[in-house]
Amino acid sequence: MFKNNVQYYEAQQCPPQWKAFLAAFSAEFASKGEVRDLRALMHQLGRIMAKQWQALDGSSLQALEDGINAILFQMNWGWIEMMEERESLIVAHHASPLKAAFGAEALPWSPALLEGIYAQIFEQLGMDQSLRLCQRGEPAEDGQLFVYELKKQQDESHYFARR
Amino acid sequence: MFKNNVQYYEAQQCPPQWKAFLAAFSAEFASKGEVRDLRALMHQLGRIMAKQWQALDGSSLQALEDGINAILFQMNWGWIEMMEERESLIVAHHASPLKAAFGAEALPWSPALLEGIYAQIFEQLGMDQSLRLCQRGEPAEDGQLFVYELKKQQDESHYFARR
Amino acid sequence: MFKNNVQYYEAQQCPPQWKAFLAAFSAEFASKGEVRDLRALMHQLGRIMAKQWQALDGSSLQALEDGINAILFQMNWGWIEMMEERESLIVAHHASPLKAAFGAEALPWSPALLEGIYAQIFEQLGMDQSLRLCQRGEPAEDGQLFVYELKKQQDESHYFARR
Amino acid sequence: MFKNNVQYYEAQQCPPQWKAFLAAFSAEFASKGEVRDLRALMHQLGRIMAKQWQALDGSSLQALEDGINAILFQMNWGWIEMMEERESLIVAHHASPLKAAFGAEALPWSPALLEGIYAQIFEQLGMDQSLRLCQRGEPAEDGQLFVYELKKQQDESHYFARR
Repeated sequence: MFKNNVQYYEAQQCPPQWKAFLAAFSAEFASKGEVRDLRALMHQLGRIMAKQWQALDGSSLQALEDGINAILFQMNWGWIEMMEERESLIVAHHASPLKAAFGAEALPWSPALLEGIYAQIFEQLGMDQSLRLCQRGEPAEDGQLFVYELKKQQDESHYFARR
Repeated sequence: MFKNNVQYYEAQQCPPQWKAFLAAFSAEFASKGEVRDLRALMHQLGRIMAKQWQALDGSSLQALEDGINAILFQMNWGWIEMMEERESLIVAHHASPLKAAFGAEALPWSPALLEGIYAQIFEQLGMDQSLRLCQRGEPAEDGQLFVYELKKQQDESHYFARR
Repeated sequence: MFKNNVQYYEAQQCPPQWKAFLAAFSAEFASKGEVRDLRALMHQLGRIMAKQWQALDGSSLQALEDGINAILFQMNWGWIEMMEERESLIVAHHASPLKAAFGAEALPWSPALLEGIYAQIFEQLGMDQSLRLCQRGEPAEDGQLFVYELKKQQDESHYFARR
Repeated sequence: MFKNNVQYYEAQQCPPQWKAFLAAFSAEFASKGEVRDLRALMHQLGRIMAKQWQALDGSSLQALEDGINAILFQMNWGWIEMMEERESLIVAHHASPLKAAFGAEALPWSPALLEGIYAQIFEQLGMDQSLRLCQRGEPAEDGQLFVYELKKQQDESHYFARR
């Protein structure tokens, strides 16, 4: 019936109350819009969502990761790891319900919802105006992993405004 | 904290996984569209949803009501009563999660989702092409009751094509 | 199908994951024990549960009620009102899932679970050792309301130890 | 925060409404009884649960596996694989909520609940009276896999009575 437990848990992840509505949303908008427009819509919806979130503690990367994970766990939206690379800050988002809700065929655009959430969070934490958070690469691990990246400017050593 | 149990249960009805997304959807679309357009969108989404439902037994009003209630219960979308009036067929939908999900301010347009569901169901059961199912009146019981109506034509004694 | 919305919501309240197990628990223990023993077991289980709860703010009745309601809401265990009567402190617990989980036939003993929870909470807040919290009267509102009472001693003017 | 997605999903699997009660049940009974008695209790509760299940189609191993998986999925109790070995019939139960609900320390006895369920199912399908279904080996895959075994008698070539 299932190939492994992750497949089983994914099938259970989106509650039946909204699964059919979200699938209809996905089908309707995909039939009307370009991927580019769909990504813009999802990004915008993500920003609206994050504006409602409680204030996050950005005093350290670990504190921020913990704060985001607490919210995600309470929503059952998966879990993240944040890490600093030489030139960028990475958010790896695991086990989101996006594929279960919007379907595999929406994977080219549905992850822009999380992009909008992280863009909004980082802006609220005072992210430098010249920076932009973007999804990096394709969804991985069969739709269970999306990666977002905040690139440093060449001459910058920080992401967030000093406060 | 709550005035009564219905208020409590309504606050619990929409699972946290999608409550914030659906509120964002509601805010974003309400800021961009007219009520008329929002109703058209919701009606269309409802039709797409109902197309995915299993076939319903339309051999009697009771069988149809039971079949719809079984699907609604499994989704936690409330419960319906169907009744024949002199000139029309009525669907009274109780305890839907629409207000909990899309908010009280969306009540002028969110119930068009159910209108689309019922319109699609009745068409699939062979509803006479000249008929049209519409929402009747305003939401009642503080957003817990929506009524839909299928009006008979003057010279008709039936709603569905003989088969 | 349902007489009213409360009946509908009650039917939805206990998630299917544990409804069958809890019904089996109820049937098995009811077949083996007296109501008195079943109440003692449920009271004890309630105490163990409350020991795991986060510390509550007992600085005022309102703060305590709010703190308990926050936990209950997160569990979907209903909501309470606390009030002082001349001789006692009352906890009225609405919309608990006890009937949905353990069945109507368990109502003589299942509410001892909440009795154990409140007894434990009050003890942790420093309730006078001579006092005892007890359920008062029968379940009301068709199993949707249980009342618990903490009786003052004749010569006492307080419930909790001064600290 | 989590080592992998299975760990995340397991943490989400038991709904908060009953997690604290089931943990209290686990703690209380473990403090009072021997593993042997706890297994007998769980086995008995499993039998009562399975008696309430809808009738299963035992006409083939695949039909039986599918029927059980449909019930398990609806409860979010994981999924099974059934297979015939030379001398026995095997049920491998993946992704059950037992560890999430009763805790890792209950793994020596909590899987007897599933043993009771399968014993009851097989008896209702006409399992030969001389046979006995038992758990085989220890829980595997960090509490995500339990295996049950129905051993053939030496001189038998079938498990179920001819009907």
